[in-house]
Amino acid sequence: MIYRRMAVIGIGQIGASFALAAKAAGAIGRVVGVARSQQTRDMAMQVGAADSCTDDLSAAVAEADLVYLAVPVRAMRQVMTDISPALAPGCLVTDAGSTKAEICRWASEILPPEVHFIGGHPMAGTEKHGPASASESLFANTIYLLCPTQAPQEVADRFRSLVGAIGARPVVVSPDEHDRVLAYSSHLPHLCAAVLSLTLKRRDIENVTSFAGGGLRDTTRIAAADVEMWRDIMAANGSAIVAATEQFCEALSDFTDAVIAEDWEQVAELLAEAKSYRDSLYG
Amino acid sequence: MIYRRMAVIGIGQIGASFALAAKAAGAIGRVVGVARSQQTRDMAMQVGAADSCTDDLSAAVAEADLVYLAVPVRAMRQVMTDISPALAPGCLVTDAGSTKAEICRWASEILPPEVHFIGGHPMAGTEKHGPASASESLFANTIYLLCPTQAPQEVADRFRSLVGAIGARPVVVSPDEHDRVLAYSSHLPHLCAAVLSLTLKRRDIENVTSFAGGGLRDTTRIAAADVEMWRDIMAANGSAIVAATEQFCEALSDFTDAVIAEDWEQVAELLAEAKSYRDSLYG
Repeated sequence: MIYRRMAVIGIGQIGASFALAAKAAGAIGRVVGVARSQQTRDMAMQVGAADSCTDDLSAAVAEADLVYLAVPVRAMRQVMTDISPALAPGCLVTDAGSTKAEICRWASEILPPEVHFIGGHPMAGTEKHGPASASESLFANTIYLLCPTQAPQEVADRFRSLVGAIGARPVVVSPDEHDRVLAYSSHLPHLCAAVLSLTLKRRDIENVTSFAGGGLRDTTRIAAADVEMWRDIMAANGSAIVAATEQFCEALSDFTDAVIAEDWEQVAELLAEAKSYRDSLYG
Repeated sequence: MIYRRMAVIGIGQIGASFALAAKAAGAIGRVVGVARSQQTRDMAMQVGAADSCTDDLSAAVAEADLVYLAVPVRAMRQVMTDISPALAPGCLVTDAGSTKAEICRWASEILPPEVHFIGGHPMAGTEKHGPASASESLFANTIYLLCPTQAPQEVADRFRSLVGAIGARPVVVSPDEHDRVLAYSSHLPHLCAAVLSLTLKRRDIENVTSFAGGGLRDTTRIAAADVEMWRDIMAANGSAIVAATEQFCEALSDFTDAVIAEDWEQVAELLAEAKSYRDSLYG
């Protein structure tokens, strides 16, 4: 057992899956789940992600040696403020937020000096949400990004061993680099999926799925993700996302310019470049 | 048995899958596969998609009552020209091209009056290509778009029954409407996937898959598709694709404008609109 008692604040898909995986690995003792809605708390109990649930933040964290924050990014600051007086000295606070610079800054400003903080970002999750969509295998063979800049080595090592126990591979990255890279690898793809969906909605094609293969389904899948979560990501990493979008628009112009010029050799070259890069990532 | 002898010109993933499915359904007698490369011909024989293979177009079509064209869009015209003198009177020529207006026009201009033509577009296929990636279940529960404007009712009904026999649902559409709609439902998503891949390539992030979940994998999947095929689609439907791209850029601007203005309520509204539309399609 690596931690004795974990409080999961925001026991949705990620928080509940983390609890299920940690329990299945025998890495954790008791889990207390926190959610505002009774329905979420009931579901977390039903899927076995928590031993008890509450909406009382202070009670949940009071005896925890691990506090797992899995609320939307912009809610992190208030949650940190609310739990700070009740945190046990020496406990580790970590989060699963999709951006890191702002959250790590809040942690250093808000959390009391006698607790530790490690920023975290599991590269897992689906477009579903809530504990009903949780799975103990959600993190298997995935990357778990860590920003342990504010924690002593032994605290970081201990949490890293928990990440390993749930089947994920820990990768250390600085908070700023995390947000710069994720703007391209995650936030830009998300925006594209949302904008594609919005474009089709506005075009209002009757029975559009009759005119689409798996391409439309896959390119828009993540547009179905939680709205609040993604609004917060846009808010937390806005300028990097806008910069990535500009790069995207430049590449798109290269394509449409070639199409307008009827330069099919250039179109083929751009398609081949895109294909060979995609093949190099997942081929 | 619905057709006695089918010639499949371009026996790649689609052509070979169509042959396998039609054979499995007992809907077809002999299949002659045509491919330029010996390797493709060998593979088509190996997977059982064809009873014989050749690179001789005239010999392949001479006794066929069904000629299935599954070559890239821009190659269709030349293939039609080459096979025309050898086609048997009364036979049906159909195609599996991803655009329809140009191909249907070529058919009416090039094919002899004593043969029939039905434009076709199966909403199936993966990012793989070649007969090695063929499957007899590729069309199961998919839509098969048909443009039967140039065929008598009984000819269209007969081909429709073959489409049904392979497990697909035939949907009739006019060639022009097909291309206008597909620009949004298929070609724009493809362009987005390619441009996303190209943007990430140019940004050149080391180990980018460590910083990405399923979102990047899914949004870029179709960028791995066949280059020649997609170059031809862009060429055949360029102006509609450019128009769709402009709509996409407008919707993207709505997002980035809201991000730059830090109007998170508006960002949430756009994300919610995108999500609810996506949910309505596949939820």
